[in-house]
Amino acid sequence: MQIDPALLSPREAYQLLISCIIPRPIAFVSTLSREGVSNLAPFSFFNGVTSDPPILSLSISTKRDGSKKDTWRNIEETGEFVVNVVVPDLMDAVIIGARELPHNVSELDLAKLATLPSVKIRPPRIAGSPVQMECTLLRIVEVEETALILGRVVMFHARDEVVEGGRVDPRRLTFVGRLGGDSYCRVSDLFDRKRD
Amino acid sequence: MQIDPALLSPREAYQLLISCIIPRPIAFVSTLSREGVSNLAPFSFFNGVTSDPPILSLSISTKRDGSKKDTWRNIEETGEFVVNVVVPDLMDAVIIGARELPHNVSELDLAKLATLPSVKIRPPRIAGSPVQMECTLLRIVEVEETALILGRVVMFHARDEVVEGGRVDPRRLTFVGRLGGDSYCRVSDLFDRKRD
Repeated sequence: MQIDPALLSPREAYQLLISCIIPRPIAFVSTLSREGVSNLAPFSFFNGVTSDPPILSLSISTKRDGSKKDTWRNIEETGEFVVNVVVPDLMDAVIIGARELPHNVSELDLAKLATLPSVKIRPPRIAGSPVQMECTLLRIVEVEETALILGRVVMFHARDEVVEGGRVDPRRLTFVGRLGGDSYCRVSDLFDRKRD
Repeated sequence: MQIDPALLSPREAYQLLISCIIPRPIAFVSTLSREGVSNLAPFSFFNGVTSDPPILSLSISTKRDGSKKDTWRNIEETGEFVVNVVVPDLMDAVIIGARELPHNVSELDLAKLATLPSVKIRPPRIAGSPVQMECTLLRIVEVEETALILGRVVMFHARDEVVEGGRVDPRRLTFVGRLGGDSYCRVSDLFDRKRD
């Protein structure tokens, strides 16, 4: 079957694209507005870009009304954000964070999540997330109506028990990945393949 | 535990970063050189950017000797590439594709993979991949020594039996995701969560 995206509605194109690019890592992003109101929202158009220095990317679309999402606005205003990784216990908060709330309402308060202070930046980390990355804004690349945020990781945090040999061991915690539609996966069915 | 990436070697920073951003989708990318030599290589710093029109991103680093990888060079020269998704049967080819071979050697020939012609562009599709996206180059954003390739999907292909309601159903095939180190995951442990 072949599908020409030029013939699809925006919603159909979105649903098709997010079903073809899977599994996607989830960035559960905490930010602060200039006035200090916290925001928390999940994004799965998210990945690494390069590692020396460590840089990651995050695509943030506009809201349905065409205005910038709070995360975009906050990163643009303050230049700082925390990427918290998602484990199954955080899924209720992810669903709350995905709501479109007014700019002065904090998803962090709504989801009743405990936070920890960051070391190098102001936005807080989510205590329930076993791995967090403090990031500073490097550049925003505008692509159509979307902000492709490039951020530099300035500090990694991980719970002691999930780190082995300087990296996070996926056998010591269960990450959640995003699929298409309303679907997610637990990263549990692992295998190893060495490069030649 | 907190880890300041400024204190890590490039290799340590890479290993830490790819263990923290998981699961990553794999783009198994087929291209042609200007002279028509085919190339096939896997990339997992890959994701969607926006869907209207559908645009995806692909980060490609330089080779160890500082030169551009063949995929980067070919996309720059021809403006075309196919993203083939990865299923377990393609893992042997992924390992072969990850090798650094001279520019005139085809991983496609080496991996003995059957191909199918594309509809809108010249690079071939991998027949063993159940979902393929024909892409044209939109823009290359240089980030440090890395090319962040932005490509527009101009045609989607999927095996009839994996599509349901205009999207790929992850219960009808097994995608493979990339983790840190030498690890991968099968996308098999699924669950659904509706947004409010």
